Amino acid sequence: MYNFRTDLALERRDLYNKAHNIEKDIDGIETEEEKINDSLIISRVKVTNKQGEEAIGKPQGNYITIDVKNLKIAQNDEIQQASEAVTKELKVLIEKHINMEEPILVVGLGNIYVTPDALGPKVINEIDITRHLLHYMPEVLEKGTREVSAISPGVLGTTGIETLEILKGIVDNVKPKLVIVIDALASRSIERISSSVQLADTGIVPGAGVDNARKELTQNTLGVPVIAMGIPTVVEAATIAADSLTLFIKTAQEKGESNEFLNKLQEEDKYAIIKEILAPEEYNFIVTPKEIDSLIEKMKDIVARGINFAVN
Amino acid sequence: MYNFRTDLALERRDLYNKAHNIEKDIDGIETEEEKINDSLIISRVKVTNKQGEEAIGKPQGNYITIDVKNLKIAQNDEIQQASEAVTKELKVLIEKHINMEEPILVVGLGNIYVTPDALGPKVINEIDITRHLLHYMPEVLEKGTREVSAISPGVLGTTGIETLEILKGIVDNVKPKLVIVIDALASRSIERISSSVQLADTGIVPGAGVDNARKELTQNTLGVPVIAMGIPTVVEAATIAADSLTLFIKTAQEKGESNEFLNKLQEEDKYAIIKEILAPEEYNFIVTPKEIDSLIEKMKDIVARGINFAVN
Amino acid sequence: MYNFRTDLALERRDLYNKAHNIEKDIDGIETEEEKINDSLIISRVKVTNKQGEEAIGKPQGNYITIDVKNLKIAQNDEIQQASEAVTKELKVLIEKHINMEEPILVVGLGNIYVTPDALGPKVINEIDITRHLLHYMPEVLEKGTREVSAISPGVLGTTGIETLEILKGIVDNVKPKLVIVIDALASRSIERISSSVQLADTGIVPGAGVDNARKELTQNTLGVPVIAMGIPTVVEAATIAADSLTLFIKTAQEKGESNEFLNKLQEEDKYAIIKEILAPEEYNFIVTPKEIDSLIEKMKDIVARGINFAVN
Amino acid sequence: MYNFRTDLALERRDLYNKAHNIEKDIDGIETEEEKINDSLIISRVKVTNKQGEEAIGKPQGNYITIDVKNLKIAQNDEIQQASEAVTKELKVLIEKHINMEEPILVVGLGNIYVTPDALGPKVINEIDITRHLLHYMPEVLEKGTREVSAISPGVLGTTGIETLEILKGIVDNVKPKLVIVIDALASRSIERISSSVQLADTGIVPGAGVDNARKELTQNTLGVPVIAMGIPTVVEAATIAADSLTLFIKTAQEKGESNEFLNKLQEEDKYAIIKEILAPEEYNFIVTPKEIDSLIEKMKDIVARGINFAVN
Repeated sequence: MYNFRTDLALERRDLYNKAHNIEKDIDGIETEEEKINDSLIISRVKVTNKQGEEAIGKPQGNYITIDVKNLKIAQNDEIQQASEAVTKELKVLIEKHINMEEPILVVGLGNIYVTPDALGPKVINEIDITRHLLHYMPEVLEKGTREVSAISPGVLGTTGIETLEILKGIVDNVKPKLVIVIDALASRSIERISSSVQLADTGIVPGAGVDNARKELTQNTLGVPVIAMGIPTVVEAATIAADSLTLFIKTAQEKGESNEFLNKLQEEDKYAIIKEILAPEEYNFIVTPKEIDSLIEKMKDIVARGINFAVN
Repeated sequence: MYNFRTDLALERRDLYNKAHNIEKDIDGIETEEEKINDSLIISRVKVTNKQGEEAIGKPQGNYITIDVKNLKIAQNDEIQQASEAVTKELKVLIEKHINMEEPILVVGLGNIYVTPDALGPKVINEIDITRHLLHYMPEVLEKGTREVSAISPGVLGTTGIETLEILKGIVDNVKPKLVIVIDALASRSIERISSSVQLADTGIVPGAGVDNARKELTQNTLGVPVIAMGIPTVVEAATIAADSLTLFIKTAQEKGESNEFLNKLQEEDKYAIIKEILAPEEYNFIVTPKEIDSLIEKMKDIVARGINFAVN
Repeated sequence: MYNFRTDLALERRDLYNKAHNIEKDIDGIETEEEKINDSLIISRVKVTNKQGEEAIGKPQGNYITIDVKNLKIAQNDEIQQASEAVTKELKVLIEKHINMEEPILVVGLGNIYVTPDALGPKVINEIDITRHLLHYMPEVLEKGTREVSAISPGVLGTTGIETLEILKGIVDNVKPKLVIVIDALASRSIERISSSVQLADTGIVPGAGVDNARKELTQNTLGVPVIAMGIPTVVEAATIAADSLTLFIKTAQEKGESNEFLNKLQEEDKYAIIKEILAPEEYNFIVTPKEIDSLIEKMKDIVARGINFAVN
Repeated sequence: MYNFRTDLALERRDLYNKAHNIEKDIDGIETEEEKINDSLIISRVKVTNKQGEEAIGKPQGNYITIDVKNLKIAQNDEIQQASEAVTKELKVLIEKHINMEEPILVVGLGNIYVTPDALGPKVINEIDITRHLLHYMPEVLEKGTREVSAISPGVLGTTGIETLEILKGIVDNVKPKLVIVIDALASRSIERISSSVQLADTGIVPGAGVDNARKELTQNTLGVPVIAMGIPTVVEAATIAADSLTLFIKTAQEKGESNEFLNKLQEEDKYAIIKEILAPEEYNFIVTPKEIDSLIEKMKDIVARGINFAVN
């Protein structure tokens, strides 16, 4: 299979179509794009059968990408609009799997002490939970209120325990009918750092982020449907260099300064080449934008409000 | 039974002896005090039989209080000494229950976003965990390294899940032979706020802190021995007022300005009286010292280092 | 002069009237109270001449207290209402001294690392400053925009420099026509902790807070009018005890259990008595509510929004 | 003059020598390197006359670079060694300008709310200040204690006031004989991010960092000698891409896959080329390592301890 080197079903579809020189989606893949406004675009990819699965290497399910342009300078209005988009998309996904009153557990992966990895725990602190109220004082809640609980399990490096080991026991005891997992992940494109929310009702599979050690969090392992909300917050130096090299060769080509070597290079996966070059020098560090503190705060509002209005 | 209104076995012993006008410990209670230096005192109370249990209303087990005077102005040396005292006492307790290589899970109760309640989560971030290394790269560890894992489960108000429900599942999956639980709790004496560490190998029972809702965390519920490390970080206004009133009457008595009413009052539990007076006015709030941020940082070092050297 | 032991002109007026058994304000003092709603009350005291000054020991000027009940559980609506009240009162005070385009410097006193003392620095981070834009790109601002700058000078214990020494130089260079100083201060009443904003156009005078060392920040020392915004965030244990003792004696009196000693005591300043008792025992520490982190966040929103809409 | 595109006198010397194909330093430049151990290297460059100034475009003065390898994984020992190196070098620089008892003001530039820019304010919080004690209780200090004060003036975007405007007034009032300025700056080499401390007794000149707006902080503007301590904490994407492209071409050359175009390119300033390519795409963002929170904590210890032992 093609080495897509991206988790985004959307980007994989593009790469597949480009590689096969086709313009329309193949059978098994359905896509659509909705432009809410200049700074908010929603892309939906649906993998519907085995053929679709094989083409882009993602399990059958729904994959939605919400891109927020210029989050750095976004004000309350843009943040509110983005959170409403998250609510709308998430609600549709949830309703595909459970009904309105069935309990949901929200899981915030990540490390509160590492700014670019703190999104998950920060969102959990903002989730409007109801489970304890339903148990201890149901009279304060409207009839039919959904049971919502939330947990921030920490990271392997701090706990020594796989996320799955922690969640397995909690799911067994709390018995949600659906799990939403928030995960700060590595971007494979400098354009998407801290400006995208990716929803997928297929859960999280190994290799999706920078931490390969953790096991998959899916219906297979947790026993209930898992909606993954992935937010790119970091990027490898090799990705930045590869993207820049692509732009560089493109510019050289446009100016007629290219040659056979560079032309051929432009067709290849420059990430793999750059990664190999940087690795021995230990230069392939993972970076995050300078403004990450404020980006995380804004993204926290988008994701937390998005979830709160979708589940309650 | 006498309403001790304190969790400290030590203080209960004192109250029991005073109430019964006895000076030596009764059968079933063994106590000793060790003064390390002017600012570090260790008190050990052992409840050894049913009679002891009934006298002070605490289950059979070991209760150790480490008092650090003037933590506010403590420097590195004092913090190091205090952490060494914690290590020594904790090690003795651990060895009473498991052998040197058996796995331990450290649990930090509390809420990272509420300064006086953040001690547990902050300690967890400093624990030297080994469990993941033993699983994935045992070669980097010395032979015989104990398996240590750690978790900060959050609080009911943020998760909607009882601490016990979370821990039960984790203990079932991680299978430690002993659990250490760190808990910031309410002090029943203004002297002990943020200056004591209390160790008990009997776990945590309801009512121990300000949050009555949580269920007990003991060998009964978790299936393995539980060592509770309680650190007082808050105090009720009623406690401050009651302690002050006691001092006030004592002063009045010394100056010959007291009378029958006050003399009688001095014998009673002023906390209950004050609490009743303050309650309808909603004045009985819970307070913490102004310097709580720095006290928590220092206590975090004492407890985390204390545990790290005791378990590894 | 009577030892008022409170900075609040409002409370001093009450104490003065009670002590002199009068019900109407004397010449030199004008007061009014406005109840916005159940949780928002505004009191205005104006000292208009020498006689008023002498009566309550405060210089001529305007003193406004905005009380927000139950800030602990306040939601966005209540916070917005409170900030609008701050805006309205602050605007009136500002317009008494300067016109709409004259420059203002906002000063946030306090220590960002000490939660109950962090309000000032946190507010500064939220102030909509315009001074640099007016200098470097005035075209992005509407004509007539006021020049607003802001500074958080730190505390004597961290800088080694008196606040006045720092501000003097900045005022000389930045040349504002009015200075607004935000200051977290000690409450003299348990009711007002973290639930009041006090505005005074007479600046800050020594002894106003817990840190006596700092010099006064007034028109005398800075050369331009100074509006002080004081927010009580801490309270002495002696204040809690004194207030409780007052309630205690009142209850005893109501139940007919009092006597001459207590009756006489009820007339006196119990704070001074309690303080003397607690001092040698080193029990007179300064405390803050357990929920101080969230109280400071809410108060930060009230004060910052209040200022932003008043000055721009 | 050559566009050095680096502030480091050290790197400029290398570039100059390489460009002129010389191996020994020219008259006006003196350099030496000291390798303390595998992870700690100190380089000293001295510009001694006009010819040296012109060659590398830096004013006469002393430039010292302390490189700490692998700060990410550094433990207490390495941090202690690095801080001792800072102390030693800083002490020599200080003694070149003032005597042992003359007062020093330490200034921490930066924004406490932006992690990669928070180093300065965080260091200020750890400086052992003495000025207030010398004024109010000199008896607690040893005779001859130097007067040390410290300030964190904030950033233009938060205060609306140029750093120089703030410092000018403070220096006039506090009257130090020397100023030490700590500044998180942009690295021009991916190798040096968060692993170097650069000392220079020539102060800070415009364009040194990412914020061009601020004016120079030097003896010219402040009236006393200024020692700048610069710590690279961020890097432009263009720098990463340019460094990677250099490595990429080098690898191509070694494998015989290069050509005239690339060979020629290798001689040029790839940063300028890449910057031009990235700019229109708005891809030239500024990034910081994912581990920046912990890197800043470690660097804070190195710098604060380094200063404390150098000045006291």
